[in-house]
Amino acid sequence: MINLPIKGSGAYRVSAFRTHGYRTRRMAIDNGIPLITDIKCAKLFVEALRLVKGPPLMHPQVDCLTSHQVVRLPGLIDVHVHMREPGACHKETWTSGTLAALAGGITCVLAMPNTNPPCVGNAEFNTVNDLAESQAYCDYALYLGATANNSDKLAELAPTAAGLKMYLNETFAALKLDNVTDWIKHFNTFPRDRMIVCHAERQTLAAVIGVAAITNRPVHFCHVSNAEEIGIICEAKRNGLAVTCEVAPHHLLLTKDDVPEQLRAVKPPLGTAEDVQALWDNLKSIDCFATDHAPHTLEEKETSGPPGFPGVEVMLPLLLTEVAKKRLTMEDLIERLYTNPKRIFGLPDQPNTYVEVDLSEEWTIPTDGGFSKAKWTPFAGRKVSGRVRRVVIRGEEAFIDGQVLVKPGFGRNIRMEPTPRRTQRLPSIGGDSDAFQMEGPYKSVMRELAYRRGSGALLAPLKPISARTPAAYMPPRKTDSPPTSVPPW
Amino acid sequence: MINLPIKGSGAYRVSAFRTHGYRTRRMAIDNGIPLITDIKCAKLFVEALRLVKGPPLMHPQVDCLTSHQVVRLPGLIDVHVHMREPGACHKETWTSGTLAALAGGITCVLAMPNTNPPCVGNAEFNTVNDLAESQAYCDYALYLGATANNSDKLAELAPTAAGLKMYLNETFAALKLDNVTDWIKHFNTFPRDRMIVCHAERQTLAAVIGVAAITNRPVHFCHVSNAEEIGIICEAKRNGLAVTCEVAPHHLLLTKDDVPEQLRAVKPPLGTAEDVQALWDNLKSIDCFATDHAPHTLEEKETSGPPGFPGVEVMLPLLLTEVAKKRLTMEDLIERLYTNPKRIFGLPDQPNTYVEVDLSEEWTIPTDGGFSKAKWTPFAGRKVSGRVRRVVIRGEEAFIDGQVLVKPGFGRNIRMEPTPRRTQRLPSIGGDSDAFQMEGPYKSVMRELAYRRGSGALLAPLKPISARTPAAYMPPRKTDSPPTSVPPW
Repeated sequence: MINLPIKGSGAYRVSAFRTHGYRTRRMAIDNGIPLITDIKCAKLFVEALRLVKGPPLMHPQVDCLTSHQVVRLPGLIDVHVHMREPGACHKETWTSGTLAALAGGITCVLAMPNTNPPCVGNAEFNTVNDLAESQAYCDYALYLGATANNSDKLAELAPTAAGLKMYLNETFAALKLDNVTDWIKHFNTFPRDRMIVCHAERQTLAAVIGVAAITNRPVHFCHVSNAEEIGIICEAKRNGLAVTCEVAPHHLLLTKDDVPEQLRAVKPPLGTAEDVQALWDNLKSIDCFATDHAPHTLEEKETSGPPGFPGVEVMLPLLLTEVAKKRLTMEDLIERLYTNPKRIFGLPDQPNTYVEVDLSEEWTIPTDGGFSKAKWTPFAGRKVSGRVRRVVIRGEEAFIDGQVLVKPGFGRNIRMEPTPRRTQRLPSIGGDSDAFQMEGPYKSVMRELAYRRGSGALLAPLKPISARTPAAYMPPRKTDSPPTSVPPW
Repeated sequence: MINLPIKGSGAYRVSAFRTHGYRTRRMAIDNGIPLITDIKCAKLFVEALRLVKGPPLMHPQVDCLTSHQVVRLPGLIDVHVHMREPGACHKETWTSGTLAALAGGITCVLAMPNTNPPCVGNAEFNTVNDLAESQAYCDYALYLGATANNSDKLAELAPTAAGLKMYLNETFAALKLDNVTDWIKHFNTFPRDRMIVCHAERQTLAAVIGVAAITNRPVHFCHVSNAEEIGIICEAKRNGLAVTCEVAPHHLLLTKDDVPEQLRAVKPPLGTAEDVQALWDNLKSIDCFATDHAPHTLEEKETSGPPGFPGVEVMLPLLLTEVAKKRLTMEDLIERLYTNPKRIFGLPDQPNTYVEVDLSEEWTIPTDGGFSKAKWTPFAGRKVSGRVRRVVIRGEEAFIDGQVLVKPGFGRNIRMEPTPRRTQRLPSIGGDSDAFQMEGPYKSVMRELAYRRGSGALLAPLKPISARTPAAYMPPRKTDSPPTSVPPW
C-alpha cells in the first residue's frame, strides 16, 4: 500500500489519529500489509516497477481493492443562503454559515439580503461585505434587496452584487413588496446582466412571469415548492419564456408530515406527497438545487416558530443519496449545483476548485446540525449515501475529512477584485491539482462517470459499510483503469 | 314649428301628456307660435317653401332656435352586467335588467355567468338563454364561467357565448379558480376567436398577464379599479402585450368616501382619490367602459352587504356629464362603449341600431334606481347632463322618452341565429332610419361631432335648464347646418 499522509495545518499529519489515512495506515501495519508512506520511497518503488517491464507479480483483485467510490465534482454553488449577519448572529454568522457550506461541498454561496439592517443600499452592502470578507470560509456574493424606493440606487450597486432579490410573499424579515408597479420599476431598472430572483409562490409566481413578460427580461424563481408552481414553470418554459427556478432539498425530500409540527415552519411551506412527486416528475424544469439555508435555533423554532431550515451542510449528501437511488443522475446534480447556477447568474470561474465525495460511504445525519449555529436539521436521523471528503478552493485544500484547513476570511466576494491581502497564496499540494486544472472539473468528472456507468461501477449497489475493509483514500483518477486490468505500476 | 307626433304603442300619441313633444306643442299653442303637427301639412309647407325660391322671410336666430343638443350615438354595448336570473329574481330578472339597460341607451349587454346555477355547462347555458330569450328588451350574449374541470366542454360551447369569464379573486357567488394551472388549462383550450375576461385584481391581474404570456393569447380585464392595476396595464400595453380592459363608472366617478358605509361594498372596492385620478390620467389605456351592473336590493345591502352596484341605466348620462365637463370627448365615449367592445369581443353589427341623447338636458339621478329591481343607485342625487331620448334597435323604436315600445323577448342573443318568431319585423318609422343606415351610426355621429367641435357648439357651456325655452325634439342631422346660415327651406 502506498499511502502518503497529506499536509494539514502546516505539517504532515502522519499521526493525526482521527483521519481515515491514519486509520488505514494503522490497519495496514496491524494486518501485515506492505506500506509506503514516504513520497521518495514511493517514487523509487514506482521506478522499480517500471524497470520490471511487464506486469508485476500481483493479483489486482486482491492487492488493489477499494470499496470507496470517490468522485470529484466541480466546486458547488448554492444560490440561496441566509447568513443572518448582521442582525442575528446567535443563529448564524458568516463564519459558522460558510463553514457549514464548506463542509457540505459548497464552494460559493449567494447570500440573501434580509439581514438586519437589510442589504438594500450602499452602506448596508458595505457593512455586510465587510463582515463576510473577514469571516467567509468559502467564496460568496451578496444579493441586494428590492424596496419600494431603491430601484435607482440598486442599479448602481448591481455590478458588485449577486443579483436582486424581491420578496413578494410573506416571509422572515420585512422586505415584502406589495405593489406590482414597484416590481415593474425594478424589472425595468436593474441591469440586465444581473439576475432578478423572486420569492413568489403560486399566483405570485404567475404575476412575476407577467411582469417579466411586460418588461421582457428573464427571472429566476426561488424555492419552487409545489405542483402548481412547477406546473406554471413547465408551461412557461415550454412556451419559450425566459424563466429559471431552483428547488430546495427539503421541498424535494420532505412532506409536511415528515417534520414535527413545532419545527415544520418554512416559507414556502412543505408540500404534500403530490407536490413532492410533481417536483420529481418535472426535474427537467428545475434549473438549480439551492438550500434556502435559513437557520433558526431550536429554541426559537420551538417557541415562536420562525420559518426556515438550515441546509448547506447536508444538501450534497442528501442529493448523492438520490443519485444512489437512481432518482437523479450525477449529471443532473452537477448541472443543478454548478453548470446552471454559473450560467444563470453569470458567475466567474473559481479556478482549480473542486469537491471530492465518497459515494460509497453511508452514514446517518446527526441531530447536532453540524457547523451551523442552528444546531439542528430537519433531516436528522436520515440515512444518506455519500460524504464530502475534500474541498479544494482556488488550489487550497480548504476542507478534508471534517477538518477545516483554511482561515476565516479565506472566502472571496466573486463579484469584486481581490483585495491585496488576499493575493497571498499558499503553495498548492502535489501535482494533482495542476493535472486536474488542465481539463476542468466538470469534464473530468463527466469522463469518469461515463466510464463508470459503462462498467456499472458507479451505480452498483453499495455494500453495507460494516462489511467493507477500510481502504486508502484514492483520488478518483486512479480508479479510472478497469479494476480487472493490470495497474500501471 | 313643425312637430310630428311619433308613433307610440300602435297609435300616434298626439295627446300623450307626459312627452316632451306634447309639452312642446302645448307651449307653441300657449305662446302663439305657428305649429304644424301633421305630416301631410308639413310636406305641403316644405313644397311651398321650395316654390318661394330663395330664403324665406325669417330670421334663423329667432325663428329656428333650439336649446336642445340631440346627438345620435351608435347602439351602446355594456360588456359586463349581472342579470341575477336564474337564482336571484328578487333583485333582477332579464326583464328588469334589460329594461334598465335600454333606458340607459344600451342596446346590447354581455351577461356574466355567476347565476344560480352558474352558467358553466351546456344545460345551464340553455337554461339561462331560454330565460333571456323570452324576456330581454335589448340584445345580449352570455358568458361562460370557468371551473376547475370544465375547460373541455366550454370549448364546445364557445361559439354561442360572449366569451369566457374567470373569477380569480373573491367576489359574489362561488366560481373562484385558485390554481394557476387551471387557468392555464382554460387559456390553452378556449377557442381563440372568443375573448377570455378575468376578474383579477392587483397581483392577480399581473398573474393573468403571466398566464396570457405563457399561453400567448389576448386577455381582457374586468373593472380595473386602482392606480396599481391601470399602471400594470399601461406598462403591458406599452410593451405590446395583447391586454385590454374595462373600467366601471363607479370606479371612475366615486371614491370610497362618496358612498355610505353600509352601501359601499363592491368588488373590486372603490378606490382612493389617487386611484380615481390614475384612471383618468390613463384614459388612453382604458379600452371599454362597462357597468359591472350588479344589483342587490337596498335591504340586502343594508343587512349582509353583498358587493355590487346597479349601473346600466345611469352610465351613459354619467359619462355624458364628463363629456360636458370636458374630461372626456364624445369620441372617447363612443370608442369605449361601441367601437372597442365590438372589436375586442368580435360582436356582430346590430343593424340600424342607435341611441339619441339630449346633451343639454340636466337632471338629477333619482333615488328610486329606475327600472332595475335593485331600486337604488350609489349615484342618487347626482346632477347629470344628458339624457337618453330614443333607442332604436334593428329599426324598431324600442324606447322613447322613458317609454318602452317593444315587448319582452324583443332582444336577441347576438351569437345565435334568430329563431323564426323573431324574424317578424314591425315596419320602421319614417324615412329617417333608412337615411341613417346608409352611412352607419358611428360615421354619422363622428361627422356631426367634427362639425360641432369646429363651431364650438357641442362643448359650449350649457345654460341652466330653467332658463331655456322648451324646444321641439330635433333629430341631430337637422342641426348640421351652421346655426347662422340660412336654413335649406
